[in-house]
Amino acid sequence: MLPWEAALAGRIDRHVISSEFLRDNVLGDPADRPLWVYTPPGYDSSDGRWPTVYVIQGYTGHLAMWENRMPFRQPFTETADAVFASGDVPGCIVAYVDAWTAYGGSQFVDSPGTGRYHSYLCDEVVSWVDASYRTIADRESRGIMGKSSGGFGAMITPMMRPDLFGALATHAGDTLYELCYIHDFGPAVRALRDYDADIMAWWDDFRSRPSFTKDGDGTLLGLLGCAAAFSARDDGTPELPFDPRTGMIRPDEWQRWLDWDPVRMAAKYADALRSMRGIWIDAGTRDDYFLDLGATAFRDELAKIGVAEDRVYFELFSATHAAIDYRYPMSLAWLAQRLAR
Amino acid sequence: MLPWEAALAGRIDRHVISSEFLRDNVLGDPADRPLWVYTPPGYDSSDGRWPTVYVIQGYTGHLAMWENRMPFRQPFTETADAVFASGDVPGCIVAYVDAWTAYGGSQFVDSPGTGRYHSYLCDEVVSWVDASYRTIADRESRGIMGKSSGGFGAMITPMMRPDLFGALATHAGDTLYELCYIHDFGPAVRALRDYDADIMAWWDDFRSRPSFTKDGDGTLLGLLGCAAAFSARDDGTPELPFDPRTGMIRPDEWQRWLDWDPVRMAAKYADALRSMRGIWIDAGTRDDYFLDLGATAFRDELAKIGVAEDRVYFELFSATHAAIDYRYPMSLAWLAQRLAR
Amino acid sequence: MLPWEAALAGRIDRHVISSEFLRDNVLGDPADRPLWVYTPPGYDSSDGRWPTVYVIQGYTGHLAMWENRMPFRQPFTETADAVFASGDVPGCIVAYVDAWTAYGGSQFVDSPGTGRYHSYLCDEVVSWVDASYRTIADRESRGIMGKSSGGFGAMITPMMRPDLFGALATHAGDTLYELCYIHDFGPAVRALRDYDADIMAWWDDFRSRPSFTKDGDGTLLGLLGCAAAFSARDDGTPELPFDPRTGMIRPDEWQRWLDWDPVRMAAKYADALRSMRGIWIDAGTRDDYFLDLGATAFRDELAKIGVAEDRVYFELFSATHAAIDYRYPMSLAWLAQRLAR
Amino acid sequence: MLPWEAALAGRIDRHVISSEFLRDNVLGDPADRPLWVYTPPGYDSSDGRWPTVYVIQGYTGHLAMWENRMPFRQPFTETADAVFASGDVPGCIVAYVDAWTAYGGSQFVDSPGTGRYHSYLCDEVVSWVDASYRTIADRESRGIMGKSSGGFGAMITPMMRPDLFGALATHAGDTLYELCYIHDFGPAVRALRDYDADIMAWWDDFRSRPSFTKDGDGTLLGLLGCAAAFSARDDGTPELPFDPRTGMIRPDEWQRWLDWDPVRMAAKYADALRSMRGIWIDAGTRDDYFLDLGATAFRDELAKIGVAEDRVYFELFSATHAAIDYRYPMSLAWLAQRLAR
Repeated sequence: MLPWEAALAGRIDRHVISSEFLRDNVLGDPADRPLWVYTPPGYDSSDGRWPTVYVIQGYTGHLAMWENRMPFRQPFTETADAVFASGDVPGCIVAYVDAWTAYGGSQFVDSPGTGRYHSYLCDEVVSWVDASYRTIADRESRGIMGKSSGGFGAMITPMMRPDLFGALATHAGDTLYELCYIHDFGPAVRALRDYDADIMAWWDDFRSRPSFTKDGDGTLLGLLGCAAAFSARDDGTPELPFDPRTGMIRPDEWQRWLDWDPVRMAAKYADALRSMRGIWIDAGTRDDYFLDLGATAFRDELAKIGVAEDRVYFELFSATHAAIDYRYPMSLAWLAQRLAR
Repeated sequence: MLPWEAALAGRIDRHVISSEFLRDNVLGDPADRPLWVYTPPGYDSSDGRWPTVYVIQGYTGHLAMWENRMPFRQPFTETADAVFASGDVPGCIVAYVDAWTAYGGSQFVDSPGTGRYHSYLCDEVVSWVDASYRTIADRESRGIMGKSSGGFGAMITPMMRPDLFGALATHAGDTLYELCYIHDFGPAVRALRDYDADIMAWWDDFRSRPSFTKDGDGTLLGLLGCAAAFSARDDGTPELPFDPRTGMIRPDEWQRWLDWDPVRMAAKYADALRSMRGIWIDAGTRDDYFLDLGATAFRDELAKIGVAEDRVYFELFSATHAAIDYRYPMSLAWLAQRLAR
Repeated sequence: MLPWEAALAGRIDRHVISSEFLRDNVLGDPADRPLWVYTPPGYDSSDGRWPTVYVIQGYTGHLAMWENRMPFRQPFTETADAVFASGDVPGCIVAYVDAWTAYGGSQFVDSPGTGRYHSYLCDEVVSWVDASYRTIADRESRGIMGKSSGGFGAMITPMMRPDLFGALATHAGDTLYELCYIHDFGPAVRALRDYDADIMAWWDDFRSRPSFTKDGDGTLLGLLGCAAAFSARDDGTPELPFDPRTGMIRPDEWQRWLDWDPVRMAAKYADALRSMRGIWIDAGTRDDYFLDLGATAFRDELAKIGVAEDRVYFELFSATHAAIDYRYPMSLAWLAQRLAR
Repeated sequence: MLPWEAALAGRIDRHVISSEFLRDNVLGDPADRPLWVYTPPGYDSSDGRWPTVYVIQGYTGHLAMWENRMPFRQPFTETADAVFASGDVPGCIVAYVDAWTAYGGSQFVDSPGTGRYHSYLCDEVVSWVDASYRTIADRESRGIMGKSSGGFGAMITPMMRPDLFGALATHAGDTLYELCYIHDFGPAVRALRDYDADIMAWWDDFRSRPSFTKDGDGTLLGLLGCAAAFSARDDGTPELPFDPRTGMIRPDEWQRWLDWDPVRMAAKYADALRSMRGIWIDAGTRDDYFLDLGATAFRDELAKIGVAEDRVYFELFSATHAAIDYRYPMSLAWLAQRLAR
C-alpha cells in the first residue's frame, strides 16, 4: 500500500448543508456544515436504492479529519470503501456527518450550551441525504456508527429516534459515567488550580495560546464540552458536575449527566433497543476511560431488557482508547449485512 | 545522621495487650496485639501527667513497620522522639496502636467483615494506656493521628467518640470517596478478569504466592479490605460496591461506603468536630488517590459546619501519596501544643 | 478559526517528480514522488525571484500528512502561509519534499538499505524546483528545515552540501545518539522476545496486521529504519547496532550510527557550518528522546567550532517530542528573514 | 503468618567490627560497622563447621534495613532462616555485611571517592567471620550474594578474589552499563537544570531537606554514588561520566565506569569465573534498569569464556526491579547445596 493516496472504488461527494437548527447557536459556530456522502461501486450505473450508514466522530473531531493519514494506516474513507470494493459485502451509502463545536464536540444532543445537534442530525441531515441520494429511506435500512463520543452518539440517537435508525455500532462509546468521567474530575481540579478554579478562565487562556501545551488541556476541554452538552444553564453557561475547588460531586448537575448515560438510558428506551436489527459493541481492554467496562455494562443492560442475543455483536480487543480506527470497517461491514435492502 | 539506629531521648515500652473485642474475629486474627507506648524525656524522673497522642497506621501497616528504616530517613519513632528531645515542644505520651488484619487493615471501624477495631481502640487501648501510664485521662488531653487509612481513622474516631478525643491530625486521609475509591474500580474489574470476577478467588491466589507479584494485587487488596470494613454481610463476607464484571456501581453497598466518608459524616458529627481543640489536615498536591482534594473538601465541610478557623491547620504540599512520613513530626508537635495540660 | 479548511494567501502546487536516484531501490518504493511547492502571495503577479525553504518530515511522515488536521490546530501548510500572508515577513518559496520509505523514513541519507534519498533531495529535487520556479538559485537563498528525523536531515544536509544550503532549522532533531537511540535498545530487545530476536520476523508480522497494535511496534520500526539508513549491509539488509538477544552494543555497527551523529559530525563539517547564514535549534524540555539535550550539545559544538553566535537561534521550550508543529512557522519566519534576496 | 515478628530456628548475632581500611575515609563515614552473623539450627549443639554465604545490599541499603517488614512479606533474615529450618537444605552461616556510605553505597570497590570497601569486605570481614565462627574457611565453602548493586558486588568480588569466594548469586545485578546507566543520564541532566548543572549543589540541597522530595533525587543520588565509586579523582571528588549540561559522554570517565562492567570484566577474569562452583543469575523481565538484559548478557559471556553450563543457574521472571526479595531464599538454598562441606 502506498501512503499518499488511494483511488476509491466508490465515490465521495463533498457537500455543505445549511442547518436551521444550528442557526444562531450560543457558541457562534457555523450553521453551514460539511457533509460527505459516499456512494458505493455500482451506484452510478444503476438506479437501485441502498441502505445508509451515518458516521459520526469522536470528541474534537471534525469532518476534514476523516482524511488524515496516519503512519501505516489508511483513512476510514478508504478502508470503508475497501469494504465494498470487493463486492463481498453489499453496498451502502455512507454519510459522514459533522457535529463539531467550538468546544470540540456536541455529544450529538440538543443543548443550550452548544446547539441543537441532535435535531440537526435527525431532522436535517437524514432528510437531506434521503432527498439527495437513492437511499432506502426507512429505519430498517439506516444505521449509525461512531467511536468514543461518536460511539455515544451512535447509542443514544437510535434510542431516541428508532423511527429513523434500525442498527448501530459503538466503538469505545462513552458510557458508565462513574468510571469514564469521574476519572477526570481529580486531574481537572488540579489543572484548574492555575486558573482560580474557573474553567472559563482556562478556556480563555486555552484559546489564546497553542492548544494542548499545558497538562490539563485535554481533560478540561472534554469536561467543558460535556458540561456544555449535558448540564448547561438555559443561557448556555456550562455547569461542571463537581466543585472545581474540591472535586465534590454536585448532585444536580451530575444527575443531568447520568441521565445521558447509555447504561442508564437503556431501560427507559428498551422498546427502541429491542427493535434494532443489529447492535455492534466493542472497546479495547485497556481503554483509557474504562469504556471496555462501559461496553460490557451496556451489553449486560441489553440482555437485561431482552434484546435478542443474535442481534448483538460484542468484542473486547487488546487496545487502549487510541488508534482503533482499524475496527471501523469491521462494524461497517457487519451493519451493511444487517440492514434491510 | 547515621543510618543504622538512633538513641531516643524518651523511651518506648513494647507491650502486648489482650483484646476482648477482637476475640474470635471472623478472620481469625490475633486478639493479642502489640502496643507501643512512648514516654517523653522527663517522664521517669517526675510524677507529672502528660497528654497522649494515639498513632494509627495506613493500609497494610502493622506495628513493627514503625521501625522500618528507609534510605536517608529516620523512622517516626525517632522523629517523634526528636520533637520532644529539644524541650521546645511540651512532652506527650505517644501510643502506637496496631489494627492490622489478614486483609491488611481494619479502617478502625467495627465490622463483621474484620472485627471490632473501633471498640478495641476506644474501649480497650485507651483505658489500658490510661491505667498503665501517667496520662491526663481526659478528651482535652487526647489526640489521634495517622496517614492514609490512618488519617481516615483519625478523622472518624474523634467524630464518633468526642468523649475520648479532643484533637486530631490526618495526613492524606481517605475521604471524598468518589475520587479516592472509584478510581480503583476499573483497574480492579480488569484485574479480576483472570479470576472469573471473583475477588475471593483472587484472594486465595494472592495468599498462595509471593505477594504483589501481579499487577492488580495492591488495588484488589485495598478494595477487599474496605469492603470488609464498610460493606460486609452479617456473616463477614465482603461485598464489593460494584459489579466485578462490569464496574457498575451497586447502589446499596456503595451507600454503605459513602456513609463512612468523612466529608459526608462531618455534618452529622458537627458538634463533635466543633469541640475539637485542633484539626490538622494535609496531603500532597499529587496524591495518587486525590486525597489533596479530599483534604480540601473536608476542610471546606469543617468551615461549613462552623469549626472555628483557628482550630484548623491546613496545608497541601508537593508530594504524591508516598514517602510523606516527614510530615508526621510536624503534626505531632502541633498537637502537643494544642492538647490541654 | 474554523477547523475544516482555510484559504491560502499563497498557492500550493502539487507535483509528482520522477527520480533517477530512487529507481530500483532495495525496498521497491516508488521512484515517482509527490513534491509540493508553495509560492507566496505576490508570486504570480510579479516576475521577481524568491529564496526557497525546503521542508522535510519526521519519521513515518509522508507528504500527504502535511494536510492532516489536528484538533484546535492548523496544518503547517496553513501556518506557513500565514507567516507570509501579512506581509511582515518577506516571502519564500517553500518546497515540501517526500522521503518516505516502506520502513517509514530514510533519514535523508544514501543507503543500500533504503535508497539514495540524500542524492535525490540534493541533486534532483533542488534542481527541479529551481528549474520550475522563480527561485534565487543560490545557497545563500536556500534553507532547509524539519522536525525529529527531519531536523536531523536539516542538520546533516547543509553540512554535506554547503554548496546548496545556506541556512537550516532543526526542531528536536535526532542527535546525541547515546541518549536518543540507546534509550530504545532495551525495550526493543524485550519486544523481540516474541520474535525469536529476529527483527525481520517482527517486520513480517507488523505488515500482516493492523499497525501499532503491539507495544514495541513504534520502537522497533524506528530502529529498523535507522539501521537501514545507517548500518545496512551492501545487499541492503539492516544490521542492528546491538545484539537483539542481550542488548549488547555491536561496536562496528554502532560506530556507523555514531558517524551520522550531528554532534559528532559538526567538527568534521566545521567550514560548512560556519558558512551558514542562520541555524535555528529548538526542542522541548521534556523531549521523549532527550533531544533537548541533543539540541544543547549541538549548539555547544557549534560554539566550539567557531560558528558566530549571532547566526544561531537556540531555545528550549516546555514540551515533549509531540505536538510541537506550532514551532515550525517561527523558524520559517526566521529563515525567511535570514536568506539572501 | 503473623506480620509482627517470627522466631528463628537459627540465631543472628549482631556485632560491630572496627575496620582499618575504612578509617579516615573521604566521606567521614564510620569505620565501625555493624555485622550480623546468622548461625543455622544445630550450630550451637555441635562442633561442626559450616560454609558461609556473605550477603550484601543494594544501593541505599544499610544493615538495619534487613529487618524492615514489608506488607505480606517476611524479612530476608526470616526467609533465609526458613531455608534451613526444615532441614532439607544443609545449613550455612550467613554473614550480613554493611557497606553503606554517605552517598548511599560503595559498589563494594576501593575508591578514593568513598573508601576501601572491597578491601574491608575481603580482608577484614571475611577473616573476622572465620576467626569468630566455626566456618569452613575455604573458597570452596564461601559464597556471596546480593541484589542490584549487591548483585554487582556479588559478581565482581569473586572475579577479583577467587581465592576467597567459590560461588555467587546475583539478583538483578548492575551490568551492561550502556543500558542500565546511560538510561539515567538524560533525566539527571534535566534534574540538574535547577542546580546550575552542579551535582554537588544538588547534593548540598538534598541533605538540607527531606530526602526524595524532588523528582530527580533518586537518579542523581545513584549516579553520584557510582561516580564516587568508579570515576572519582584522587582527592575523592566524583566526576560524572557525562557533561552535566548536555549529557554528552565524557569518554575517559565513562571508560572508567565500563572497566567495572561485569559483562566486560568477565573475559579478563575468565579463570576466576570458570573456577566457581555455582553462579546464580536472575532478574525481572521488566527490570527498570534493563538488568534482565544485563543478566542475559552476563550469562552469554560466561558461556563464551567456557564456564560449564551446569555451574550456572539462569532465570528471568516476571517482575520489575522492585520487590524481588522473595527470590533471595531461592538462591541461598541453591548456594547452600553447591558449597563444599
